[in-house]
Amino acid sequence: MEVRNRKVVLKGFITGAPKETDMEVKEGDKIVLQLPEDAKGAVLVKNLYLSCDPYMRGRMRESYDSYIPPFQPGSVIEGFGLCKVIDSTDPNFSKEDLVSGITGWEEYSLIHNTDKLRKIATSDMPLSYHLGLLGMPGFTAYAGFYEVCSPKKGDFVFVSAASGAVGQIVGQLAKLHGCYVVGSAGSKQKVELLKNKLSFDEAFNYKEEPDLAVALKRYFPQGIDIYFDNVGGPMLDAALVNMRVHGRVAVCGMVSQHSFSDPQGIHNLYTIVKNRVNIKGFLQSDYLHLYPKFLECVQAYYKEGKIVYIEDVSDGLESAPGALVGLFSGRNVGKQVVCVSKE
Amino acid sequence: MEVRNRKVVLKGFITGAPKETDMEVKEGDKIVLQLPEDAKGAVLVKNLYLSCDPYMRGRMRESYDSYIPPFQPGSVIEGFGLCKVIDSTDPNFSKEDLVSGITGWEEYSLIHNTDKLRKIATSDMPLSYHLGLLGMPGFTAYAGFYEVCSPKKGDFVFVSAASGAVGQIVGQLAKLHGCYVVGSAGSKQKVELLKNKLSFDEAFNYKEEPDLAVALKRYFPQGIDIYFDNVGGPMLDAALVNMRVHGRVAVCGMVSQHSFSDPQGIHNLYTIVKNRVNIKGFLQSDYLHLYPKFLECVQAYYKEGKIVYIEDVSDGLESAPGALVGLFSGRNVGKQVVCVSKE
Repeated sequence: MEVRNRKVVLKGFITGAPKETDMEVKEGDKIVLQLPEDAKGAVLVKNLYLSCDPYMRGRMRESYDSYIPPFQPGSVIEGFGLCKVIDSTDPNFSKEDLVSGITGWEEYSLIHNTDKLRKIATSDMPLSYHLGLLGMPGFTAYAGFYEVCSPKKGDFVFVSAASGAVGQIVGQLAKLHGCYVVGSAGSKQKVELLKNKLSFDEAFNYKEEPDLAVALKRYFPQGIDIYFDNVGGPMLDAALVNMRVHGRVAVCGMVSQHSFSDPQGIHNLYTIVKNRVNIKGFLQSDYLHLYPKFLECVQAYYKEGKIVYIEDVSDGLESAPGALVGLFSGRNVGKQVVCVSKE
Repeated sequence: MEVRNRKVVLKGFITGAPKETDMEVKEGDKIVLQLPEDAKGAVLVKNLYLSCDPYMRGRMRESYDSYIPPFQPGSVIEGFGLCKVIDSTDPNFSKEDLVSGITGWEEYSLIHNTDKLRKIATSDMPLSYHLGLLGMPGFTAYAGFYEVCSPKKGDFVFVSAASGAVGQIVGQLAKLHGCYVVGSAGSKQKVELLKNKLSFDEAFNYKEEPDLAVALKRYFPQGIDIYFDNVGGPMLDAALVNMRVHGRVAVCGMVSQHSFSDPQGIHNLYTIVKNRVNIKGFLQSDYLHLYPKFLECVQAYYKEGKIVYIEDVSDGLESAPGALVGLFSGRNVGKQVVCVSKE
């Protein structure tokens, strides 16, 4: 059986925040839905769901010295995906298996590097959750909160981008740990979500605050023990002056810093001496040995109704460029995924 | 016996870096060299050596929310000193005892708060060393290096303000730990000292480097594991882009940031995510339980000739304002102390 394999390609390297016009949805080549005989240890997959994540911006730049190499202009964009195996020459995978891992932004992908594909057990959880709650963002929240933040019951916890893929899970884990949790987000709708659905104690719209340090002082009159930083920039600066003695800042990403070639300055770093604050950058990939424990924990919390999960599903491969771009203007509400095909 | 007790007073609160004219040497009141009968649990001391330390600038500001309260305008400046007890109503101290602790910048001081005075065992080490190598700066180096930096043999270590009171000891401890150590300083003379006397592997004059990040890349082609930061500002920014994966930055002070009301921005903080860098502010006072171990360790190193110590002694109480001011322009070579009286 021969099909046209539609795909999303990067047109060229970018400098600032990504725009829809930086990408192109193309008809793609005709392919046969069967692995060639000489393709050893490979799988051919049908892509069901694609994940839109902020780190992908780093791969759209030419010279950004990132932890993963850049995409190639003219080539298909890659990212985390949830896929169904169509054909396999790798004995670890069989037809109809569901897998998550790095795949292409296209209808079908040929994956040679099968080492990091993770087989998904059929469960009563929606498939797309494996890209969020049960995937990389959920694990980032879990590893970052428990392993980097050294949380204690009663700690005052602040989470930025709090309704996003990582933030919503951090906040709920912190509440379950007995912390007082405040989140910031960029719209009234998100603030309501944080307070009414995601069990945050308080939340505020940072776009309505003329002085972020004053806003944080209002929500944390006694100061912040843990700041889970998803944005960097002025919010990090404002949090620094509000940290308590021996406070901890986990730096997960800096989505506010669209252009790393001219990042905004952090001016309040001197406060970390007085208050003996620890600022730690981290990547979830350093903690992969905890993945099974994470899955068990978060699945149980979800099934017991202790955690809820909000995602923003856009429909069809052609919606993918817009969905990715939306991350950087905060258009998404919850974890952004693209549904290429339901099955 | 009645004497005029000369003293150094702060004329008024300052905003930028301290100037000599911010202080005044005054004749002082006539005092009797004997404790009044109603002074319970107090000691009267003769000040022999006074310590000039960068943190003192924080006490010369009105509203700087520091870890210790500001000096009072018109009142005597305080700081670490090495003193001889003249009279005592505290059973823990006797006449002729040598003590170190917080005292006044004057010839004689009446100390009510004797809790934190430390009795000095007569030894074959010069008395003034108790304000540096064996005092707060030495302990800052010891606690900061061993407790905050998590050093390993073979680590690449960078120390700024490397010939200063703290830096010179950090560098030598790091060498003794089997690290590769590079220091920065602000003059050719200091660079020579670092290389020829203080056993640094390499040293450079930061004032001669048009691009600090490029300079660090030259000295650390494979990157920095540990940055012991005594200065903050542009040097911290330059170090951040040169940190290795899992690098550690111990922030000890930010002597370059003369005016905390308008500190320079740190622009490269985003690099800590990619490289999972840990930045930790610290104060030596959190580690006081290690003080006896520190004294034993450093005294032994010194007596075995494994550590040298360089101090800059200015002569007479009237030289104290200039000596303090000199810290912020780098005029001192080694630990700056003021000799008020040799005995």
